[in-house]
Amino acid sequence: MISVVVVGAETPGNIGTIARAMKNFGVSDLKLVDPPELHRDGEAYGFAGQAREDILPNAEEVSFEEIVENYHTIGFTATTNEDARRHVRFPFRTPEELADDLAEIETDVALVFGRERVGLTNEELARIDQICAIPASAEYPVLNLGQAATIALYELRELTMDESQLPDVERERAIEPEIERFYERFDAMLGAVSYPEEKRAKTMRLVRRLVGRAHPTGREITTLHGVLRVIERATQERYSGR
Amino acid sequence: MISVVVVGAETPGNIGTIARAMKNFGVSDLKLVDPPELHRDGEAYGFAGQAREDILPNAEEVSFEEIVENYHTIGFTATTNEDARRHVRFPFRTPEELADDLAEIETDVALVFGRERVGLTNEELARIDQICAIPASAEYPVLNLGQAATIALYELRELTMDESQLPDVERERAIEPEIERFYERFDAMLGAVSYPEEKRAKTMRLVRRLVGRAHPTGREITTLHGVLRVIERATQERYSGR
Repeated sequence: MISVVVVGAETPGNIGTIARAMKNFGVSDLKLVDPPELHRDGEAYGFAGQAREDILPNAEEVSFEEIVENYHTIGFTATTNEDARRHVRFPFRTPEELADDLAEIETDVALVFGRERVGLTNEELARIDQICAIPASAEYPVLNLGQAATIALYELRELTMDESQLPDVERERAIEPEIERFYERFDAMLGAVSYPEEKRAKTMRLVRRLVGRAHPTGREITTLHGVLRVIERATQERYSGR
Repeated sequence: MISVVVVGAETPGNIGTIARAMKNFGVSDLKLVDPPELHRDGEAYGFAGQAREDILPNAEEVSFEEIVENYHTIGFTATTNEDARRHVRFPFRTPEELADDLAEIETDVALVFGRERVGLTNEELARIDQICAIPASAEYPVLNLGQAATIALYELRELTMDESQLPDVERERAIEPEIERFYERFDAMLGAVSYPEEKRAKTMRLVRRLVGRAHPTGREITTLHGVLRVIERATQERYSGR
């Protein structure tokens, strides 16, 4: 199971933001070390979205020691050590690597986030099992606490979410005969409107490339067939109207 | 170039959060359609971190039409259509797929985010070129505006950031002879402390597996060598002290 631990946060709004991200990505256990007061009508609840119903009221106040003792702890920091000369913030994983890492083990994991300004102290990090750093612009790599937790939870979603809201779209490319029939029909249409014969093959190649790489849906191909049908009709009328 | 467009946001704090995420991931151009008032001492500037110095004051107020006309637009929505029967919110890309997609083209891209409660309207989405949806828990997939933009910008960072703050750590595994020498020394130590002979080979295999998959740094191996050195010395003293 994956839990989130926030150490020494000062801004209730950040705790609400974290609770919301947890709910968005399927994590429910929130633990707080030295939290600020969280009022029902305050910012934490205001920022939590639907997490105000469960994650936030169920958040448990704990000591840092209890976390170190009972969890495989992952400490988040924007500032890593440069190399192997110091190990307080080194070696580190990115959240992406962490997701691969944690997929291979079965244990209770605590994602530990620190204070708004100073993050986790070196003393705290020294007691933590693994270090994780979110890659960000060298110019300004320091993320806001709530935003850092949001990204971490997003990256670990495969481990925590049962299913996403998104439909499975593997099967949404139109069936090949329908697409093929569209090319044939398009080519016939070029003939009917007296498209220059010497350009016809090349144009068909372009159409095939364009439509092919867009992976048209069934509905899109049906619509394009419909467009061709109307062109066909208009063309026949024009000829028969002569 | 990648720009961020926020349409009809009501909460200045969200605009500040987005500006900060932009600065964190190397995007600088912020455009606002129907923005709320942004005061220098208000929440937008309060949430923007260092983006209060440049991105926020340089944000430009524009019309939705100007964006549609001049950019390849990507509209973000938590709610997609289920399948190809309707195309207002379908087909969609995830941010991860979008990053791959955009890596292949060179054009001006606008990431378009909608209002806090209702997002982008169907009318707006119909005029937008591509749809992007962040996979989240089916139970509660609706992300806060600022958090959604943060994740999108994080996923597109390879396209927008010059370099991250993280050191390149490819070369940080200790050199193989040092690791190998550690195994030999560990094995010799087992002999010196009269470790049961029948268990020795198996124990060495476990040590090799454990240390091997942890990819020890040079500093870690040096430290382990130091530990063995002290054990060696203590063992010799004990024997010589007899």
